[in-house]
Amino acid sequence: MFSEIKKIENLFVLFIIPIFLLLFAPFRLFGEDGYELWLRYKNIDNADKLEEYKTNIQAVYFPGDSPTLQAAREELTKGLEGLLGIPVIFANGSIENGTLLVGTPASSNIISSLKLGKKLKILGQEGFIIQNSVAKGKKCIVVSANTDVGILYGVFNFLKLLQTNKSLENLSISDKPKIKHRLLNHWDNLDRTVERGYAGFSLWDWHKLPDYLDPRYKDYARANASIGINGTVLTNVNSNSAVLTPMYLEKVAALANVFRPYGIKVYLTARFSAPIEIGGLKTADPLDPEVKKWWKIKVDEIYKYIPDFGGFLVKANSEGQPGPQNYNRTHAEGANLLADALAPHGGIVMWRAFVYNYDVNVDRAAEAYNEFVPLDGKFRANVLIQAKNGPIDFQPREPFHPLFGAMKKTPVMMEFQITQEYLGCATHLVYLATLYKECLESDTYAKGKGSTVAKVLDGSLFNYSNSGFAGVSNIGTDRNWTGHHFAQGNWYSFGRLSWDHELSAEEIAKDWIRMTFSNDSEVVNTLKEIMMASRDITVSYMTPLGLHHIMAEHHHYGPGPWVSESGRPDWTSVYYHQADSNGIGFDRTEKGSNALAQYYPEVREKFSSLETCPDEYLLWFHHLPWDYKTKSGRTLWEELCYKYYSGADSVKWMVDKWSSLSGKIDEERFEQVSAFLKIQQKEAIWWRNACLLYFQTYSKRPIPSEYEKPSGTLEYYKNLRFPYSPGIRPSW
Amino acid sequence: MFSEIKKIENLFVLFIIPIFLLLFAPFRLFGEDGYELWLRYKNIDNADKLEEYKTNIQAVYFPGDSPTLQAAREELTKGLEGLLGIPVIFANGSIENGTLLVGTPASSNIISSLKLGKKLKILGQEGFIIQNSVAKGKKCIVVSANTDVGILYGVFNFLKLLQTNKSLENLSISDKPKIKHRLLNHWDNLDRTVERGYAGFSLWDWHKLPDYLDPRYKDYARANASIGINGTVLTNVNSNSAVLTPMYLEKVAALANVFRPYGIKVYLTARFSAPIEIGGLKTADPLDPEVKKWWKIKVDEIYKYIPDFGGFLVKANSEGQPGPQNYNRTHAEGANLLADALAPHGGIVMWRAFVYNYDVNVDRAAEAYNEFVPLDGKFRANVLIQAKNGPIDFQPREPFHPLFGAMKKTPVMMEFQITQEYLGCATHLVYLATLYKECLESDTYAKGKGSTVAKVLDGSLFNYSNSGFAGVSNIGTDRNWTGHHFAQGNWYSFGRLSWDHELSAEEIAKDWIRMTFSNDSEVVNTLKEIMMASRDITVSYMTPLGLHHIMAEHHHYGPGPWVSESGRPDWTSVYYHQADSNGIGFDRTEKGSNALAQYYPEVREKFSSLETCPDEYLLWFHHLPWDYKTKSGRTLWEELCYKYYSGADSVKWMVDKWSSLSGKIDEERFEQVSAFLKIQQKEAIWWRNACLLYFQTYSKRPIPSEYEKPSGTLEYYKNLRFPYSPGIRPSW
Repeated sequence: MFSEIKKIENLFVLFIIPIFLLLFAPFRLFGEDGYELWLRYKNIDNADKLEEYKTNIQAVYFPGDSPTLQAAREELTKGLEGLLGIPVIFANGSIENGTLLVGTPASSNIISSLKLGKKLKILGQEGFIIQNSVAKGKKCIVVSANTDVGILYGVFNFLKLLQTNKSLENLSISDKPKIKHRLLNHWDNLDRTVERGYAGFSLWDWHKLPDYLDPRYKDYARANASIGINGTVLTNVNSNSAVLTPMYLEKVAALANVFRPYGIKVYLTARFSAPIEIGGLKTADPLDPEVKKWWKIKVDEIYKYIPDFGGFLVKANSEGQPGPQNYNRTHAEGANLLADALAPHGGIVMWRAFVYNYDVNVDRAAEAYNEFVPLDGKFRANVLIQAKNGPIDFQPREPFHPLFGAMKKTPVMMEFQITQEYLGCATHLVYLATLYKECLESDTYAKGKGSTVAKVLDGSLFNYSNSGFAGVSNIGTDRNWTGHHFAQGNWYSFGRLSWDHELSAEEIAKDWIRMTFSNDSEVVNTLKEIMMASRDITVSYMTPLGLHHIMAEHHHYGPGPWVSESGRPDWTSVYYHQADSNGIGFDRTEKGSNALAQYYPEVREKFSSLETCPDEYLLWFHHLPWDYKTKSGRTLWEELCYKYYSGADSVKWMVDKWSSLSGKIDEERFEQVSAFLKIQQKEAIWWRNACLLYFQTYSKRPIPSEYEKPSGTLEYYKNLRFPYSPGIRPSW
Repeated sequence: MFSEIKKIENLFVLFIIPIFLLLFAPFRLFGEDGYELWLRYKNIDNADKLEEYKTNIQAVYFPGDSPTLQAAREELTKGLEGLLGIPVIFANGSIENGTLLVGTPASSNIISSLKLGKKLKILGQEGFIIQNSVAKGKKCIVVSANTDVGILYGVFNFLKLLQTNKSLENLSISDKPKIKHRLLNHWDNLDRTVERGYAGFSLWDWHKLPDYLDPRYKDYARANASIGINGTVLTNVNSNSAVLTPMYLEKVAALANVFRPYGIKVYLTARFSAPIEIGGLKTADPLDPEVKKWWKIKVDEIYKYIPDFGGFLVKANSEGQPGPQNYNRTHAEGANLLADALAPHGGIVMWRAFVYNYDVNVDRAAEAYNEFVPLDGKFRANVLIQAKNGPIDFQPREPFHPLFGAMKKTPVMMEFQITQEYLGCATHLVYLATLYKECLESDTYAKGKGSTVAKVLDGSLFNYSNSGFAGVSNIGTDRNWTGHHFAQGNWYSFGRLSWDHELSAEEIAKDWIRMTFSNDSEVVNTLKEIMMASRDITVSYMTPLGLHHIMAEHHHYGPGPWVSESGRPDWTSVYYHQADSNGIGFDRTEKGSNALAQYYPEVREKFSSLETCPDEYLLWFHHLPWDYKTKSGRTLWEELCYKYYSGADSVKWMVDKWSSLSGKIDEERFEQVSAFLKIQQKEAIWWRNACLLYFQTYSKRPIPSEYEKPSGTLEYYKNLRFPYSPGIRPSW
């Protein structure tokens, strides 16, 4: 008898386990090419943790059959089987110690018996709890929420605990998003090019939609849902009205169907002139009754295709896009036209504040404020104003946009750029959560100290009824989604911050590293160190001390401080750095453009005074002589040299740090990141040399002798051409 | 003692085998997304075969260390470990029964002792043998060749034997290519768009080259080498001289370095006006000494970057491309200019015959012949004339190009299109080997009966000193390389035929199915049946009875028989179908354009006579009344209806056939092909309805009542617009 049991055990070990391992091998051993992102679900290699998790998750009780719950259960199954390396056993109501309970109180008596009502009450439509509990006298972990999508978020967060090797003791997680609309903005064109995209081409294979649904669409939804993103604008803000025609709406609907179970709504960009282009009207005047009617019918049509359509994102009267000002109407009149059509269906309008008209006598940094603040209070309730983090355009470092805090009656939402238009495009490792946090934590002083940008955004400062975060996507057809493996971390951290802006950049980085690379402490610490330093390093070799907008024209790849002729003066570099024989920098104090007047007094004073203005913003707000003594004791010219050289040197430090992890990172990703870091190192030196050689023509001062001499001449750098750099619209 | 052994055995079974299985799982269990192409190396599921193979391949003796031999050994290792599921044991000269011997006689005494010299002598620089042999008294299989690349080809072919479950008894394979230059032509632009590309975008990530080498480049080389392709033209024939500048040559060199071990040379397209555009000259006149000098220096420079550079492919004086005729020089003078620069380095010029000037009084089908035949004998020895298979432009069915057989002193090489510009673009299942074979086996009668196109191409008919096959690539960034899984079979069959044009389309299909999908006989037979029928089906629903060039403008997606205005008359459809109230078809007999005069008498007579002209070419050569009685007994109009309806119905048959394999094909590929087949079915009906409704406006006859009525109106079909169809150059 004993030997019989042994035999069966042996059989199990001999056949069942290996067969099982093989069955699930695709999940666990799938090529480490980055496709799986942070949802890697690799078998947990910490034996103690594995044991703890197996003990706590011996079975799963997970009732319910909505598409969202099915998606959540599928994810949980895939995750647990990958992480634990054993099949998931689903319980049918017989609860034992170590049964994981997942569900809403409404879905099951067992879960409603846990009396979670009070805790859940404050968690709204998207929150969830994860906690230790006792059900039917058994020790259990419960994942619960008020809604199915709350369950989905709970499941992803539960898996994250395992992925990051957290303890399952004393769990008491209650979480809900601080921001309502958490969206990716895809600047994707219908021909699949992506404006400012550096990771291949658009994921949306319009030609084969709606008939063929690339499995990648679902993985895209999974990744977004896992970090709390609940909306996606499929099309470029430089928009094309064709997407509003039935042929495309049918395709959009097919994508919406894939995304819906994951709590993700689709949005489109609305071209303001669509009534003319596809409607056959003679005008797009927002006050014209025919135009109003056209939009109403069009929006009703959209909702027939997509019953939960999210709404429109609009770039109007900006960089050539049509808008209400073409008809002498205001942005409010334009936005309200669309808002009225959307309101009956619950849709919203996100109206971009990135506008600047053609009067170049005004500082471009001041224009959005000038245009929008007078309109505060004139927008419909379902309109949000979407402002970029800074007043120029996603520069490596900008002060926060003065519009944050200035619109008391109109919700202002955030537009961060995840794609690295100005941050090295495809190949520079720059962790952007530090940039995002810097802006979010900036104090507007709108209602006194502590009136941070984040509090403006989440609505708590002015009691906005709506709130939103948008991130310009860095996602494309590249196998690893984002081109650079580390750019995945920017997508990830944008999502995490859109859910909870109070998280620190460092804790997000650690989670991401653990989920994406390894729980090995050396890996975690080294990568965290690289990531946390990376953005300041990049600022140093690109645009130190508050310099901005000195990149090459059009494609924005590489340095171009010499750009002096363009379609508009404020598309040149010289407009922004103002370098001359006297000095360098843009004077935005009252002696200059006085753009500083748009900030609240405390901010204005801090930035106006050379005593208190941080070095980071020095040349953003001040034009200073080359011999100006900076806080370091060095002259401005010397400080500029110091920053550029130390920035470029620090990339070498990043290269060395990364190299030290050889053997601890899978080969394919290790090699790719190594190659990209070497490109970054080369290009940091390019930026440094080109900028310093150019500014030297004004400063007339030598580069301090302790630094290596630039290898190329200024002429060499000025003559470099990159006509096929990625991320440019073909029509430009 | 016995129990000790048992214990060790158990240990082995318990740990070693599972660990080993897991180690190699990525190769075998890699997601069935089509990335692995026909190099799947899946564990052999036929137990008898597996046993036979394990017995015959117990160890591998494979000396030598050149990059090519390393690549071959790596492939053999990956292949055997995947197919056999056990680690490869490499022998160091101790030969036993079942040792696989791989190497050139020069590489090893053991192999030279086999006395293969006589057999190898006739196999040239690329041939190989695979045979059973006895070495040191042991039964062995030997793979040998005169060169390292021959070994590589031998290894791929040996693995193919296993992949297709062939017996390893009585092996006696001696093989060498019949064609010297076997090339893919990539119509890839430097911005990564692909003209007529339907599988995503260009593989060449120029922006990150030369620093980052996508692992995919190597897999591309492996796939090509496995089917005998030995060259690749990286850039579009609508060319861009920027690729000849140092910045790009450095990138090209990096690709060449990846491809070199796989026996693949890189080629570029040379823009004839490059001396002006990047050389600063005032002219590109081929007789100008400065121009000659410029090209010589440029070519010398290219060879500094790429010592084994293959040469140039040139589209000149065709569709707006510059060429020698801009300077009143001939194509020969243009080609010789480049040939002279390349000759010292061993490079070749492939000069395209796809030209048609602006005199529309001439039948476009006749123009290439008229331009090139008079130049026969005037080209340098390292020039090949590259002609498309038919005289128009890659139509679903064309008669063979009259240039084949007409150039006795100048090697004419073949340009087939693999990408499906006129064959349903991304989503139609059309197996092209039958199209290729139809052309290759066509008899030109140039030297009497049996003077097939293939014999012209391989040089045997006219003793050409050079020979070439080019295929316009269907490869892009799509995960499965070619968009449609079955389009992989077109890449595959092009390669196989370029090596050996005597292979049948059917045997190539069988190999491909076995390697790509399954050795299951139902799968093999069903897919073979679908594939073999597919091209005729497509011709029937698109362009039956010799109709041609009736597709939509520009993007060529879908029907457009009504296209009557375009940049040139011979870019319209009406130019080609000539439908009027009397009848339909292009009269190319002596009563018409007399293009038939360009064929040898036997061919001319066959096609001229309505008695002998096959139905397939009826309207290609004849304009016939709607009531003309066809061989079927039906009138021409009825026959047209019959063809369109039976073609569309046959797609339904394909759908059903494919569906019958449910469960025998992995899920992801099964679903994708199913979706694509449904698109094909929809589009076949679209083609049928649009064409018949249009032609009916001339025929004034009803669609026979046994057929279902077209669902849309002619106006509906005429008004469909697809401005963002893939595969169009952005500049168009």
